[in-house]
Amino acid sequence: MLPITQSQIPSNIIDLGAGEPHQSVFPLEMIRRAAEERFAQGDTSFLQYGIEQGDGYFRLALARFLTRGYGLPANPESIFVTAGISSALDLLCTLFTQSGDTIFVEETTYFVAPRIFADHHLNIIPIAIDENGLIIESLEENLKRFKPKFIYTIPIHHNPTGSTLTKARRTRLIELSQGFDFLILADEVYQLLTYAGNPPTPFAAYIENEHVISLGSFSKILAPGLRLGWIQAHAKIIKRLVTSGLLDSGGGMNPFTSAIIRGVIESGDLEKHVNHLIETYRPRLQIMNSLLRQHIPNITYTPPQGGYFFWLHLPEHLNAIELRQQAKSFHVDFRQGALFSSTGAAQNCIRLCFAHYDESHIEQGILRLKACLAGN
Amino acid sequence: MLPITQSQIPSNIIDLGAGEPHQSVFPLEMIRRAAEERFAQGDTSFLQYGIEQGDGYFRLALARFLTRGYGLPANPESIFVTAGISSALDLLCTLFTQSGDTIFVEETTYFVAPRIFADHHLNIIPIAIDENGLIIESLEENLKRFKPKFIYTIPIHHNPTGSTLTKARRTRLIELSQGFDFLILADEVYQLLTYAGNPPTPFAAYIENEHVISLGSFSKILAPGLRLGWIQAHAKIIKRLVTSGLLDSGGGMNPFTSAIIRGVIESGDLEKHVNHLIETYRPRLQIMNSLLRQHIPNITYTPPQGGYFFWLHLPEHLNAIELRQQAKSFHVDFRQGALFSSTGAAQNCIRLCFAHYDESHIEQGILRLKACLAGN
Repeated sequence: MLPITQSQIPSNIIDLGAGEPHQSVFPLEMIRRAAEERFAQGDTSFLQYGIEQGDGYFRLALARFLTRGYGLPANPESIFVTAGISSALDLLCTLFTQSGDTIFVEETTYFVAPRIFADHHLNIIPIAIDENGLIIESLEENLKRFKPKFIYTIPIHHNPTGSTLTKARRTRLIELSQGFDFLILADEVYQLLTYAGNPPTPFAAYIENEHVISLGSFSKILAPGLRLGWIQAHAKIIKRLVTSGLLDSGGGMNPFTSAIIRGVIESGDLEKHVNHLIETYRPRLQIMNSLLRQHIPNITYTPPQGGYFFWLHLPEHLNAIELRQQAKSFHVDFRQGALFSSTGAAQNCIRLCFAHYDESHIEQGILRLKACLAGN
Repeated sequence: MLPITQSQIPSNIIDLGAGEPHQSVFPLEMIRRAAEERFAQGDTSFLQYGIEQGDGYFRLALARFLTRGYGLPANPESIFVTAGISSALDLLCTLFTQSGDTIFVEETTYFVAPRIFADHHLNIIPIAIDENGLIIESLEENLKRFKPKFIYTIPIHHNPTGSTLTKARRTRLIELSQGFDFLILADEVYQLLTYAGNPPTPFAAYIENEHVISLGSFSKILAPGLRLGWIQAHAKIIKRLVTSGLLDSGGGMNPFTSAIIRGVIESGDLEKHVNHLIETYRPRLQIMNSLLRQHIPNITYTPPQGGYFFWLHLPEHLNAIELRQQAKSFHVDFRQGALFSSTGAAQNCIRLCFAHYDESHIEQGILRLKACLAGN
């Protein structure tokens, strides 16, 4: 067997840390049908160098989908099609920073984003967060000392902590971005995956402000292998993106795939699929929550309202890296908190994902985790 | 009509400058069949985050194809799958340079590559070329004054000049890259599109040397909208690519598309299609050559042996930018040489593409160009 996928979980392990969707949720038939229809049209435009901003019909379909999903009018002219959020972050670093510039990330944050920033030789400053997201006082403190080009934030159903930035803090963050002239790169990948309550208005609603950039992706609502996502931003930002050397040279970032996925959106299949995911993930969140309360004592956490993750604080004396070593013999795995920290903090925290496995595997996994913790 | 493709030529214009394949050559049916088969397998691996280096089965198929096409053994372990040459150049800039570093390009060169380098805030030094490619003496001269991180070269059927780097110069360039410790980014996109004679051994044959990176793409041999290409390089270079933040975060660059195109390679369709392209483009080159000799006096050029382009030197007193203005009223277009120069040179040169149009359009276009030039 040759390798195809990025992560391969050994079959005897339940990896409660795995943060990718399970392959069983990918709607192969929906995508197959859309591909069949695209090919049957006999038009080869989608095989040509694509328009820099992304296929106009795809952007129109996506705008309509986002208008319903985000509950606010989305404009196809404000959308730029990307090859996923990683590619978007990479391009934004190239165009809006130079080596040695300072940028802010949340402490803790999605651990591979800072690796993209490090590849661009940026100076990464961590800003503290709590159960309501970014702590504005911590941001203000750091703005006295640093002049960041941007802040990278995951404002909803945060990875790893599950927290969501409150409306008041969002307003204040946007004011500060204007006052101190830095960009907000808002990773809103989990905005549409809310299982309880009403999510706050996404940053995509504030792009009349040149400092606000909203990042979206099909990775969690359809399939990551597509490498397809989008940026919503002010016309000035969109203009800088489409006039970059990369886009001028290669054309739009993913014309072939976006032309196929356009069909999945236009048919209403994507909306159906997102609803199906919500109905699939909601009970998984609930069961993990009740199993944690029942079986894992001495932990504190705030249950998430959407997304993928639980963030557990274990007793202070426990070290999650050492615990992960022990967990191997219990055939269970998770992610140590330190992985998400740029300061080596969160030593006693662990990230669990409730979205990857079905209920029975979650139960098995939590029972194995309980057994592993019992000796500590 | 919403925009889908990057370039849209008005229907009353024959644009002899257009450097993209014509949509009529894209093998829609071959790709449709491969997609149908991939979906019919029922395996959703290609929708998951892909392995960083690129799908193992795709790399195996590509290695076998390149082994035949390049006439030398290609190893799947030495291949890294990209989203096209533009994305490859962008990633290489991120990983191997910092803002302010110096790099070398050919004078003249494919005009959008330097725009990618400029976005990375690199200091771009032009190195002269002639009808045998890069002039080694010019390179040596500049190596006395600058310490480049890399040289970007198009060593075969050069864009825009059509020239091919001789074997002796290749050997010398590789020696210099070792002696002066810079990378060679060899854009070999036209290696497989040779219509006369035998092409020199590609740089892909020399990747046991850590300084040599060969860039390939499906844009000219299959379809640019796929955003699919490859890098062949030493294990140390491959390792740096696969451990980058971008790949760690998003997984392989194009798992969905590469899984489909794998079928086009494995069936033998890609090889058939490349042979078909060669048989299609060879007579177009020949007819453009004979029409130029017959109808356009007072020009000098070296006929290309492959690729896409003729590079014409008009009489010294002519300015190609002004000529392009006049050409509008003759319903013909081309590219002025200055577009490919980072020094504002080549004012009296123009680039024509013989690959885009069929023979009758080429004849029409050359006759219009003749009429346009007649007044000058």
